[in-house]
Amino acid sequence: MNKQKIIAVIGGGQCTKKEAKMAEEVGKELARRGAVLVCGGLGGVMEAACRGASSEGGTTIGILPGDDSQAANPHVHIPIATGMGYARNIAVVKSARAVIAVGGSYGTLSEISHALHSGIPVIGLNTWSISRNGREDSSIIPARSPAEAVDKALELASKKGEQ
Amino acid sequence: MNKQKIIAVIGGGQCTKKEAKMAEEVGKELARRGAVLVCGGLGGVMEAACRGASSEGGTTIGILPGDDSQAANPHVHIPIATGMGYARNIAVVKSARAVIAVGGSYGTLSEISHALHSGIPVIGLNTWSISRNGREDSSIIPARSPAEAVDKALELASKKGEQ
Amino acid sequence: MNKQKIIAVIGGGQCTKKEAKMAEEVGKELARRGAVLVCGGLGGVMEAACRGASSEGGTTIGILPGDDSQAANPHVHIPIATGMGYARNIAVVKSARAVIAVGGSYGTLSEISHALHSGIPVIGLNTWSISRNGREDSSIIPARSPAEAVDKALELASKKGEQ
Amino acid sequence: MNKQKIIAVIGGGQCTKKEAKMAEEVGKELARRGAVLVCGGLGGVMEAACRGASSEGGTTIGILPGDDSQAANPHVHIPIATGMGYARNIAVVKSARAVIAVGGSYGTLSEISHALHSGIPVIGLNTWSISRNGREDSSIIPARSPAEAVDKALELASKKGEQ
Repeated sequence: MNKQKIIAVIGGGQCTKKEAKMAEEVGKELARRGAVLVCGGLGGVMEAACRGASSEGGTTIGILPGDDSQAANPHVHIPIATGMGYARNIAVVKSARAVIAVGGSYGTLSEISHALHSGIPVIGLNTWSISRNGREDSSIIPARSPAEAVDKALELASKKGEQ
Repeated sequence: MNKQKIIAVIGGGQCTKKEAKMAEEVGKELARRGAVLVCGGLGGVMEAACRGASSEGGTTIGILPGDDSQAANPHVHIPIATGMGYARNIAVVKSARAVIAVGGSYGTLSEISHALHSGIPVIGLNTWSISRNGREDSSIIPARSPAEAVDKALELASKKGEQ
Repeated sequence: MNKQKIIAVIGGGQCTKKEAKMAEEVGKELARRGAVLVCGGLGGVMEAACRGASSEGGTTIGILPGDDSQAANPHVHIPIATGMGYARNIAVVKSARAVIAVGGSYGTLSEISHALHSGIPVIGLNTWSISRNGREDSSIIPARSPAEAVDKALELASKKGEQ
Repeated sequence: MNKQKIIAVIGGGQCTKKEAKMAEEVGKELARRGAVLVCGGLGGVMEAACRGASSEGGTTIGILPGDDSQAANPHVHIPIATGMGYARNIAVVKSARAVIAVGGSYGTLSEISHALHSGIPVIGLNTWSISRNGREDSSIIPARSPAEAVDKALELASKKGEQ
């Protein structure tokens, strides 16, 4: 049995309508390409992405901060309850071959940081940009659309899988 | 979409042939009843249980201690890489509605403890028994066979789900 | 500069008067011998042990499950806020050269398990005893008094430190 | 007994000579003002800061990613072994009333993110700057010197302590 191609979608637990629409489209595209979606399992961007993936028959995993699987949004098929608070952010990104960030606040920035630290590619849609000691760090790969974000994520995930 | 009924199988990363046979049968029974299996994703009891579940078309989740999804045994469909060492034991049991322990060493005892602490039922096959300050604690529910263990786990999981 | 000799005291967040008295005496003895006390930072056995250590001029560390250092009992000098729930139990025992368990419930049993799994000696005062598949496991070293518990803990900690 | 004023110093496990010099001076200043230093316990910026604090009689805490307290740098007085990998970054910042970042790579950026997410003030010396969806986020408070960084950290820590 082959292991699944797992892609993380990260972003705020609360988000704008525009971000929700982008996240939902990312979820749909991932499902159409046969990828499994992993996320933090809660609302906002996470819920929109799961709704999209689920509507196209995809599988969704939600790695939750709390003790209770019932806290997952209704489009999570496989809730993982960690009871470890924001330490779960690390498991979200480490479980993925690539990460797509949609908008997001400091929690999302922590996930981006953990992914880059672990050598996992990060694609960004209207998300953070970072500079180290005055020099721009271009590790977050920008995408102009959900479809382009998924294209890039799957391409980089394949390269990573071949390593 | 309904969330899956997730049952944990816990036990040693190394185990006897007898334990492996029991774990494989537990995995098969869980898959036949439509349950999703969650475990620590490595060898021994974990691998045997995943092999059993997979052979009957079931879905298996492996919550790994390390950074690398590739460390999962070959019968894990959905590897979750936590990078958190034995803290991942907590996520294994908290993600389940019931836990089946097969044999096991101190790591398994930690999982049993975390499950009982969280009010998650634990069914035991040739596993630990515990006494508190000289009085036997009968919280670990003994089963005489893999089929009986799965029966009890699913019955208790249903009750828990109704709460 | 030499690193401190750190000993963990574990036990319930709620406890009997007898347990509190034992824990306080354990804390006093540890401080008199120059050991630093580490615990989970909350009430019951943890608070009693910290009160004892503090009354004899010892240093106390509380590794807390939550986000807020203010949740530590008033006798904790150095609160560590993990935000990781019961995963903090692992850090409590791994930070110690030996563990003294006083009474305790399933959370304490998880700490005992993690310590034994990591090869850290565990001394018990009116605490759990364990049997693996019907055979008694004598890894938890019984003590008849707080002074004897501290004697044994420091003796085993020294051996461990020499390794 | 009053709880200690704990300030985190974060930065790379490897660093430039200039960063090491800044970190050492930050450590010295913290010790002179009676603050306790918490860090990730390893080399680079962490070691330099601990060396500085220790040389001025201050107390240093190292919250380690691994299982072994012996991995702490030689200037850590109180090593905390978490066994949780980079999840320990969260405990480093949550245990502090303010955070001083010196240089740093993605691991440091994750710590900055977790601190900002938790409402803990972050002072930066030659470290990251961040922009959210094209707009600069000025939450990381710049300092021009180690002394200024410590001034700002202690001032903000006092305000936080009064809340």
